[in-house]
Amino acid sequence: MSETVYFEDVEIGSALEFGPVTSSRDEIIAFAAEFDAQPFHLSEEAAAKTHFGSLSASGWHTTALFMKMFVAKMQAGGHQDASLGAMGVDELRWLRPVRPGDTLRGTSEVVEKKASRTRPEMGIIKSKVTIFNQQNEPVMTLKPIALFRTRPH
Amino acid sequence: MSETVYFEDVEIGSALEFGPVTSSRDEIIAFAAEFDAQPFHLSEEAAAKTHFGSLSASGWHTTALFMKMFVAKMQAGGHQDASLGAMGVDELRWLRPVRPGDTLRGTSEVVEKKASRTRPEMGIIKSKVTIFNQQNEPVMTLKPIALFRTRPH
Repeated sequence: MSETVYFEDVEIGSALEFGPVTSSRDEIIAFAAEFDAQPFHLSEEAAAKTHFGSLSASGWHTTALFMKMFVAKMQAGGHQDASLGAMGVDELRWLRPVRPGDTLRGTSEVVEKKASRTRPEMGIIKSKVTIFNQQNEPVMTLKPIALFRTRPH
Repeated sequence: MSETVYFEDVEIGSALEFGPVTSSRDEIIAFAAEFDAQPFHLSEEAAAKTHFGSLSASGWHTTALFMKMFVAKMQAGGHQDASLGAMGVDELRWLRPVRPGDTLRGTSEVVEKKASRTRPEMGIIKSKVTIFNQQNEPVMTLKPIALFRTRPH
């Protein structure tokens, strides 16, 4: 088990690489059928009539796959123990379609950290995340605003 | 079948109400197990040791439930036919935990629209969305940036 990484231990500029994950056609359609049942996420025929051209994953599926990769990385590196979730996300952008069988990976870099004004037991960490496909094209960017436990005194 | 709502038909200030949807404990845990396996989204015991206090849904589950409600509303109102997905989301904020059995609903209001600089067949519509729980407390806000088909000439 790794040592716990607390708010104080996270440095601005520190970077993580995470993934890969591959999502199948069945998984893409199943996610869309449950949460984002727009025709272009459900069938090739409907997608061909739009700028997507062919079947692509719901953008919310891509965010969920980012989280899956990121949590696995945090848990492998001891960051999990101090994670207290997130306040939100800024500037989420879906740049390219994610297709069935695409293999995604990601990078994150800490860009800002600050103490919580109201809760001394936690701090706020802002990162910049980019998700790439197997051609190294960025498919999504976002700036999560995470909460981390401060070191116990 | 409703008449198609194109980019030109969407007015700034126009509002939609959508939902409700209720997510069970089993669904919350299943989503977290697949995409956001942090302990406080998986067990009451782990959640009790954090500021969450008790089991709560992954924020990405809440965004997916927003999309589920919103797509159903669009499909009921003819908006679906012109939807071309979204470029992204600004200022996503998770304000309160979503608990097992919470019943969510949402409101959206169009705050900005502009023609695409590069693609005359589509336009950009920015909205402000708020998701409420059954106590009418806001649990999440976000500003989606959607793409809509322009009226064929």
